[in-house]
Amino acid sequence: MRYDTPIVILNFKTYIEATGENALDLARVCEQVSDETGVNIVVAPQHMDLFRVAQNVKIPVVAQHIDPIDAGGHTGSILLECAKEAGASGTLVNHSEKRMKLADIQKVIGRVKETGLISIVCTNNVETSAAAAAMNPDFVAVEPPELIGSGIPVSKAEPEVVTETVDTVRSINPNVKVLCGAGISTGEDFKAALELGSEGVLLASGIILADNPREALLDLVSDI
Amino acid sequence: MRYDTPIVILNFKTYIEATGENALDLARVCEQVSDETGVNIVVAPQHMDLFRVAQNVKIPVVAQHIDPIDAGGHTGSILLECAKEAGASGTLVNHSEKRMKLADIQKVIGRVKETGLISIVCTNNVETSAAAAAMNPDFVAVEPPELIGSGIPVSKAEPEVVTETVDTVRSINPNVKVLCGAGISTGEDFKAALELGSEGVLLASGIILADNPREALLDLVSDI
Amino acid sequence: MRYDTPIVILNFKTYIEATGENALDLARVCEQVSDETGVNIVVAPQHMDLFRVAQNVKIPVVAQHIDPIDAGGHTGSILLECAKEAGASGTLVNHSEKRMKLADIQKVIGRVKETGLISIVCTNNVETSAAAAAMNPDFVAVEPPELIGSGIPVSKAEPEVVTETVDTVRSINPNVKVLCGAGISTGEDFKAALELGSEGVLLASGIILADNPREALLDLVSDI
Amino acid sequence: MRYDTPIVILNFKTYIEATGENALDLARVCEQVSDETGVNIVVAPQHMDLFRVAQNVKIPVVAQHIDPIDAGGHTGSILLECAKEAGASGTLVNHSEKRMKLADIQKVIGRVKETGLISIVCTNNVETSAAAAAMNPDFVAVEPPELIGSGIPVSKAEPEVVTETVDTVRSINPNVKVLCGAGISTGEDFKAALELGSEGVLLASGIILADNPREALLDLVSDI
Repeated sequence: MRYDTPIVILNFKTYIEATGENALDLARVCEQVSDETGVNIVVAPQHMDLFRVAQNVKIPVVAQHIDPIDAGGHTGSILLECAKEAGASGTLVNHSEKRMKLADIQKVIGRVKETGLISIVCTNNVETSAAAAAMNPDFVAVEPPELIGSGIPVSKAEPEVVTETVDTVRSINPNVKVLCGAGISTGEDFKAALELGSEGVLLASGIILADNPREALLDLVSDI
Repeated sequence: MRYDTPIVILNFKTYIEATGENALDLARVCEQVSDETGVNIVVAPQHMDLFRVAQNVKIPVVAQHIDPIDAGGHTGSILLECAKEAGASGTLVNHSEKRMKLADIQKVIGRVKETGLISIVCTNNVETSAAAAAMNPDFVAVEPPELIGSGIPVSKAEPEVVTETVDTVRSINPNVKVLCGAGISTGEDFKAALELGSEGVLLASGIILADNPREALLDLVSDI
Repeated sequence: MRYDTPIVILNFKTYIEATGENALDLARVCEQVSDETGVNIVVAPQHMDLFRVAQNVKIPVVAQHIDPIDAGGHTGSILLECAKEAGASGTLVNHSEKRMKLADIQKVIGRVKETGLISIVCTNNVETSAAAAAMNPDFVAVEPPELIGSGIPVSKAEPEVVTETVDTVRSINPNVKVLCGAGISTGEDFKAALELGSEGVLLASGIILADNPREALLDLVSDI
Repeated sequence: MRYDTPIVILNFKTYIEATGENALDLARVCEQVSDETGVNIVVAPQHMDLFRVAQNVKIPVVAQHIDPIDAGGHTGSILLECAKEAGASGTLVNHSEKRMKLADIQKVIGRVKETGLISIVCTNNVETSAAAAAMNPDFVAVEPPELIGSGIPVSKAEPEVVTETVDTVRSINPNVKVLCGAGISTGEDFKAALELGSEGVLLASGIILADNPREALLDLVSDI
């Protein structure tokens, strides 16, 4: 239910506006907007804020990254079991700001699935989306890197990236849902993204750096 | 005060025995032993456990790693400001399981110092300890990697690594305190480490994987 | 023609037995065995030996790795155009000892294809082979990492990895040829690999560290 | 003799203007200018051009990078022994476009010294230069990264970086010679760099991308 589509995933990145107390506030805003509008909203806070955020909201909380490790001697790494116990019900994988090796993506997808969590693999074009789909994650989120943080929505600038990703992913693995990201911030962008065949959006600065994140979120989901 | 020497820094790594609730329990044991014996004990939990641990103990809590970034678009990274707000009063830097680039180590040491936190730079031999000391951290913790997790204490296997590190670090930067690690687990090891000129120990498996971590910690600090 | 299957690709790695003059000698042995037996043999020497090897043999020479860069300011990296001019007609991509990020693998496959060279993407299991095939390289070479250098042939230890990779790759992209590697050294291993549906082998230590590499190569291809 | 100062080290990077035949031409120009003017000029071609360049010029040839490995199973890496046999008499280490981990820098410096070659460690500020000097390389080349390729010479923009690096390196290890780089292209820049206490320059685009590299090089060394 909580990951039913259409879905909005808000990546807090390491923005100071989404750090510590700010992360808590923002997560609560997401929860309220989700409650008020019925649109599923998922938050991805920083690692050190994850427990606190998960304690304070009922919407799904995902990690920004999980390392391809098993428990043991891996100082400084993110262990899936720790993320789960801290309250994560899923994780971003291979975000463009945290690109991973192919074998590591596959290992994390597999471990996440075994643990009953949700994986959202970020990709940069049709070809890498196809590759990701072949490894059977729950979601593929395609984001042309040149549009991330640009304010130019992928749905307008490169709609064919979304439609071709949807078609290719479907042909390789129909169980995988496609999200899109990069430059998404308005209700119009979100609507366009859905019309292109995606089932949701992954976004960050468009909401987090907005003058009023609550208004921005409400606008985002207003037309769905 | 809290970082006065002799000091024990316990690295929780990603051991399942030091994850989630286990991390809380272990941190509380460290706090009790510190209170009972007067020896400063510092804990380094996993990123996602850090807030929770810091909320529950009064001994210093350090991060296992901080990324060399400023706030902004850095999905999946560890931001110093987030670590501080979560309750970290310092951080390990360049642990052998999370080796960093030279320029990044220097950037993190500088940012940590500006923020009023403590940096503990891990090194693998006399030469890299000298290099680390030249960048003015608070502590250098020398650990021959082949002895980490071996149960063979560096103070016995390679005492000259400790004494030469102490001498070299002192000649380059007398403000830097030297810790040693790798294979340390008993009170005898700790005592030997101090006699070789170090001001404390960095350790992990010797305590965390002990049948009774409380007993192991008590033994460790018994002779100091 | 030169990449027609069945094919043997010999990875020189950074073995001292395949460095400098030794690389030249070994490449000449490969050329002779290829000439004598009619089996296509391809060599992958170290970067700094590649020009010299390519100047001295007529069999195909491939790079061990190409970086995902365009010409410009990338000190220390391997530029595709430089490899081509030095005599490479293809490249290994994502070898288990040089794992690459997903987006970088895709970029290199694309650039290699545009340049008219051949790409051989190394993978570690069925899932990553499927992902690689979705990005349309010329070859996928599956090698369970635990068997590399083991002397235990994948065709015996994990034949299902080869057959499932062949099936999966074919279903995703029938243009991609499957090779297998890890532990292959004898003619029996090679024959078994072909019977499992692969079209050749990628190997290293079984030949390079043999007492007599020429004999070992002759044995390898004797039954094909 | 060949590494006597004042010295010019020309980094070919992966510029197409310094790839393959172009690399040969450029190296010959460097050799001629060195012969005509008596100034030591060292070239750092791409890995796959190194053998060919070394065969064709008598000036010193250095690698752009060496990996921190011993001979063995390290596909795609640069082995010191291979570089030496290909004709390298030294290597850049830790260039800002190929940043290395602290422990790896130290390992490479040590191996290079044992092998009788020259190490030139690149650094980005006074603190990292101090750290590098503590590991006893032959040269430290300080380059503020924001000035690399900028055309604004470090000797003008941040002269104190050069003078403080010279002083700090001297105090830590008087055997280490300081070079400077970033934005250097004219004879005036080079002269200023020497007056600030450095013993030479490391440069790239200022010469390689010049309309006439021979003229640019002649200008560079004209006042020395």
